[in-house]
Amino acid sequence: MIDTAISIDKDRLNYYFSELAKIGATPLGGVTRLALTDEDKAGRELFIKWLTDLGCTVRYDDVGNIYGHYAGTDDSLPPVLLGSHLDSVYQGGQFDGALGVMCGLEVIAALKASNTRLRHPIELASFTNEEGVRFQPAVLASGVIAGEFTPEFAYSRTDLSGKTFGEELERIGYKGSATNRPTNLKAYLELHIEQGPVLEDLQLEIGVVEGIQGVTWLEVTFDGQSNHSGTTPMNRRQDALVAASRVIIGLQDLAFSVPDTVATVGRIQVEPNIVNAVPGKVTLWIDIRNPANAQVQKVKDLAIAMIEEISQSQGVESEVNQRWLAETTYFDTAAVSAVESSTKSLGFSYQRMMSGAGHDAMYMARLCPTAMIFVPTIDGKSHCQEESAHWDLVEKAANVLLNSVLKLAS
Amino acid sequence: MIDTAISIDKDRLNYYFSELAKIGATPLGGVTRLALTDEDKAGRELFIKWLTDLGCTVRYDDVGNIYGHYAGTDDSLPPVLLGSHLDSVYQGGQFDGALGVMCGLEVIAALKASNTRLRHPIELASFTNEEGVRFQPAVLASGVIAGEFTPEFAYSRTDLSGKTFGEELERIGYKGSATNRPTNLKAYLELHIEQGPVLEDLQLEIGVVEGIQGVTWLEVTFDGQSNHSGTTPMNRRQDALVAASRVIIGLQDLAFSVPDTVATVGRIQVEPNIVNAVPGKVTLWIDIRNPANAQVQKVKDLAIAMIEEISQSQGVESEVNQRWLAETTYFDTAAVSAVESSTKSLGFSYQRMMSGAGHDAMYMARLCPTAMIFVPTIDGKSHCQEESAHWDLVEKAANVLLNSVLKLAS
Repeated sequence: MIDTAISIDKDRLNYYFSELAKIGATPLGGVTRLALTDEDKAGRELFIKWLTDLGCTVRYDDVGNIYGHYAGTDDSLPPVLLGSHLDSVYQGGQFDGALGVMCGLEVIAALKASNTRLRHPIELASFTNEEGVRFQPAVLASGVIAGEFTPEFAYSRTDLSGKTFGEELERIGYKGSATNRPTNLKAYLELHIEQGPVLEDLQLEIGVVEGIQGVTWLEVTFDGQSNHSGTTPMNRRQDALVAASRVIIGLQDLAFSVPDTVATVGRIQVEPNIVNAVPGKVTLWIDIRNPANAQVQKVKDLAIAMIEEISQSQGVESEVNQRWLAETTYFDTAAVSAVESSTKSLGFSYQRMMSGAGHDAMYMARLCPTAMIFVPTIDGKSHCQEESAHWDLVEKAANVLLNSVLKLAS
Repeated sequence: MIDTAISIDKDRLNYYFSELAKIGATPLGGVTRLALTDEDKAGRELFIKWLTDLGCTVRYDDVGNIYGHYAGTDDSLPPVLLGSHLDSVYQGGQFDGALGVMCGLEVIAALKASNTRLRHPIELASFTNEEGVRFQPAVLASGVIAGEFTPEFAYSRTDLSGKTFGEELERIGYKGSATNRPTNLKAYLELHIEQGPVLEDLQLEIGVVEGIQGVTWLEVTFDGQSNHSGTTPMNRRQDALVAASRVIIGLQDLAFSVPDTVATVGRIQVEPNIVNAVPGKVTLWIDIRNPANAQVQKVKDLAIAMIEEISQSQGVESEVNQRWLAETTYFDTAAVSAVESSTKSLGFSYQRMMSGAGHDAMYMARLCPTAMIFVPTIDGKSHCQEESAHWDLVEKAANVLLNSVLKLAS
């Protein structure tokens, strides 16, 4: 029996969210809660306390993913899993990841408060190391349970100080058993902030996410000749930074020329990087995304040709290595429709859209029918301390999540 | 009485040079002998031993500059000072600085070997922290004795580990008395590698240096908006690195458009500098040089206007701060002529030229008539481990130095 009057308690949700945001809080209103640090441990403990208070049984698996189990009336049925992540980037925002986990907690709290048990059990996950800031790659622990990575690979990931994922997971006390991984799931739903400006620009309340766009990362090295900047005539230079700059501009032009593409040089490293030396070596990292796999490939090919051409004209050597390729993920039609019909029945404005960013849902989609719900992000700002969302829109998205759970778990 | 048959002993010079190059030697044939490190101390001790062996009296001043005094027949006359520096950049070459000091040592050794005393005393200096790699700014200790900086300013300079110039100078035992600084000099001569390709390109043996070209350093900050690279549409970006790249290209075009100009972006710093974030902030450092002060000013003004225009078109804020301005130094006509006539009388090919790089001679020119002698640099490579020069050309330059000393000190 479903009580259709069940809804999210905005104050309780805000309480959960605000208490969690105190852990690793930064002076400018953000959080630094890197994976497997003491702050992550403190966040996990608070999360488990709340799950336990709500009558959930709690377990964690061999890569530290935590699951709260809220029993169904037929607890042998496959659970509907909600989830996201509690780790943040360095000086990140309060919303990225944490909002999805806290909205899942509030869904369970709302069910509990109205003494509602659904037919299927509900589970709520917090996945380890989604951000990939401390341990690379990103989306690591959901990747392990989806079979993309082995646990040994995850354990061997090393942070800048030389500590491994495995050591740190044991240190904070969250290395559980592989038998605790979820199996035979009914569905996976993830609520997340959009992290971009599209919904806000269109003045829409909800994003019904159909999938996650493809992405590739290229590492490009330019080898020129370092030399004294005062004594080396302009026509005798092999300036690796000038070549790299031409590629950065060329990549921007390329992205504008292929619809729906974003292309970014986010990271650059220059040697020797001193004011009075012509740069001899530059490494840069390119991020290319498009909802269509063929377009990612096309932009990548055009970028590689451009790099080659610019390197030759500038007299520097270049090398391109592909560091990541994730093809576009398309979510399950029925799961997306469940989210869409919940949104419609609640009367909220929305659009179907692809996610620009990667999420744990990318890997969970390999295990079970998956969908995501996006909350508009103020000014599109994310991965920064100003990251925020309007609370009336958060409440609406959480109600969409709750109603989708009611549909899928009944 | 001058024995005109006195000349440089190439083997002895090579011995001095090679023994010194063992101190701080790198696997690829360069040296790392940063100012006031243990390697610098070891280099100083070897240098002082050699000076003492040659019968020089040795003193060091309040900023660690070392002076060897080779007495003249009238030792009350103002000395002719030779010099350069023993410190190197990180993974630098064997020649930069060290060659000038070792050629000065060989000049004294050649005089001593032929039992020659000139009328004026000869002094040989090694100046502290010419490179400015460990402690900024460069040319620090010759700047102190020329009155550009106070000793207190020098002492307060701090390296990346937080150690100060003053502490490190005392630690290695080379903090002497200000009364040991040179006063009333007859002339200052500095032999140095060119550090550029010009002499080699023209197949000339000697550079007769008339002065040091003017230089200015600009620190430019671009403030855009950091954002997620997967979720931020191209037309919604304020990418600080794209703006910086356009400035790097524009500066190159500008340098080509104003004759005799070199302009370089050698250093760049990007925030947050992660592969999947649109760069929000970029700081870059511009180095502009031209032999004419008015042209340095012109290129600087054009660069600032270009930065402003690009920033506006890219929707980022920018700020320009001038971090250094050294006007062109013109050496003393008579001192330069002494070097030129020595070169001519020895029958070596040469050209008069401006130095592209700064040297201790820049500040010494404020204290006394000054000139420099350049040795062609193989492939123009300097500030790198491959830095080298042909030994027959080194020998020729050292003989020019010796003959110039004979002229000036007799």
